[in-house]
Amino acid sequence: MIETPYLLFLGDAPDGLAAKVAQGIKDWRPENCVGQFRLDGCKADLGLQDMTLAEAKAAGAKTLVIGVANRGGVISQTWKKVLVEALEEGFDLASGLHNLLRNEEDLAAVAKATGQTLHDVRIPSVQYPIANGEKRTGKRLLAVGTDCSVGKMYTALAMDACMREKGMKSTFRATGQTGILITGDGVPLDAVIADFMAGSIEYLTPDNDADHWDIIEGQGSLFHVSYSGVTLALIHGGQPDALVLCHEPTRTHMRGLPGYKLPTLEAVRDTALAMAKVGNPDCKVIGVSINTQHMGDEEAKAYCAEVEESLGLPCVDPFRHGAERLVEALAVV
Amino acid sequence: MIETPYLLFLGDAPDGLAAKVAQGIKDWRPENCVGQFRLDGCKADLGLQDMTLAEAKAAGAKTLVIGVANRGGVISQTWKKVLVEALEEGFDLASGLHNLLRNEEDLAAVAKATGQTLHDVRIPSVQYPIANGEKRTGKRLLAVGTDCSVGKMYTALAMDACMREKGMKSTFRATGQTGILITGDGVPLDAVIADFMAGSIEYLTPDNDADHWDIIEGQGSLFHVSYSGVTLALIHGGQPDALVLCHEPTRTHMRGLPGYKLPTLEAVRDTALAMAKVGNPDCKVIGVSINTQHMGDEEAKAYCAEVEESLGLPCVDPFRHGAERLVEALAVV
Repeated sequence: MIETPYLLFLGDAPDGLAAKVAQGIKDWRPENCVGQFRLDGCKADLGLQDMTLAEAKAAGAKTLVIGVANRGGVISQTWKKVLVEALEEGFDLASGLHNLLRNEEDLAAVAKATGQTLHDVRIPSVQYPIANGEKRTGKRLLAVGTDCSVGKMYTALAMDACMREKGMKSTFRATGQTGILITGDGVPLDAVIADFMAGSIEYLTPDNDADHWDIIEGQGSLFHVSYSGVTLALIHGGQPDALVLCHEPTRTHMRGLPGYKLPTLEAVRDTALAMAKVGNPDCKVIGVSINTQHMGDEEAKAYCAEVEESLGLPCVDPFRHGAERLVEALAVV
Repeated sequence: MIETPYLLFLGDAPDGLAAKVAQGIKDWRPENCVGQFRLDGCKADLGLQDMTLAEAKAAGAKTLVIGVANRGGVISQTWKKVLVEALEEGFDLASGLHNLLRNEEDLAAVAKATGQTLHDVRIPSVQYPIANGEKRTGKRLLAVGTDCSVGKMYTALAMDACMREKGMKSTFRATGQTGILITGDGVPLDAVIADFMAGSIEYLTPDNDADHWDIIEGQGSLFHVSYSGVTLALIHGGQPDALVLCHEPTRTHMRGLPGYKLPTLEAVRDTALAMAKVGNPDCKVIGVSINTQHMGDEEAKAYCAEVEESLGLPCVDPFRHGAERLVEALAVV
């Protein structure tokens, strides 16, 4: 387990989206965040207090969490300076980056010398089985999206929070580094070996009480050519009883793929449902979650109403309007 | 790249099926095989000359390829003796076994001392990129199946051989350990980290001459819940211009999944094509390959005719009838 509370490292994030890991932790476990650490040129801001390492230490922070993504990149020397100093100041480090803290010789050496811990949450700590496709007890919901980074994790976390508030049995199941950093548990699916992807999701969502819901964080999109295989493994390993569709309406192309347009919600509904029915013929699409962060209040309301009308499914932005109506829609399953 | 030509190690294979990797190499790249090496009690015979290590060395063999499955997942002491001697004689070793040569302390030590190479083709030797989805020059065909082990590799190898015989520019692109041992190169896709699956296939099938075809070996099935994610990564990373459907008509359930029926060829056609069009809107399904090994001649002929009629696509068993008609069908792409 990662020691809390955290100081959130935003580095030199080029925009807010690049710091979505830190944003997720701040939104869902604000009590775990004492402040943020930003480098010159950082374009992200969580609205937390900017702190030096010494200030954060004095405020009780135990772990410096790298809350910013670097797409297939390297840990720059600018970052290194802060990370090494943090270890020297007595912080543990936690990261979901592809390139591991433990593989950086300087960080590994300083961590060893100082007795601090390097948490690479992206690395599976379990040898997962190959999926067997057998029916499991309990119920499962999976968030599927038109694109990457459209709000699948938020939707799942919001539904889980709402369900537990209503006294329902629910567990948020993390499948990515942010979710794992938030909950301290989960499957780092994008780092799992191909043959074991679906099996890792079966492992994550085992037999449970008949009235218990696993609310599974989605990844990627069936229509995102870089990551679609991961999404299909989630659909087949998760064996969902219910799907919630996730979309961000102002996106002009698939994330990271300038030549690719977003699919329609109808296309995602039909394709994801057809694939889900291979593993669970009773699966249903129960609602739509819209990420309206780039829309005004009226625009957001009108857009959701329009989608609700055309798809015949409850449609909300759970961040703006609450997840209540999506949770109520589970009654049909 | 594995150095050719090979001496094929059949060990103490209990039957011909146990040596199917060696059989595949001999069938598809006979020019790479100088002979076979068999232990006492070996029940497999490729019809190649039996050779000692010294004889094979004299005949020019560079690599001893383990072409047989091991019993109980253990590299026995009987095998070890030959493998160690081979290293001492100046052979490299190549293997697709689950348990890696490099993890055997004696083999690793002798390889190091002799300067010979241990090729574990199950393990990626390259750090693959994340897929970028960019259009590449040249043409690509991908074999997609109703199930695992229905003849996708065979179909791709047969088409590649037929195309080269006709003077077309073609390269078989291996995505599994047998294919890699046959050609000496490829991507062991089921061992690739999830995020890099599609990227590994982009890497495998780079820009090429406009009239060159990559004939990509398929894996799994979109309808096999254990491995479907691997299949979708092939479809999106491969960016195929053409798909060939593969099927084994006597299969009663999905391989390894007793509760799962096989999809129809129509379902595979529609789903695979819809997914392929995300990456390449011009993709076409060009034909159907039936594995008729469990059917009589008349039955096989009638079945293929029936599929050809109902799907409106050329349909053959390339092993029985040749791959000519599938290759001719590429003209429409």
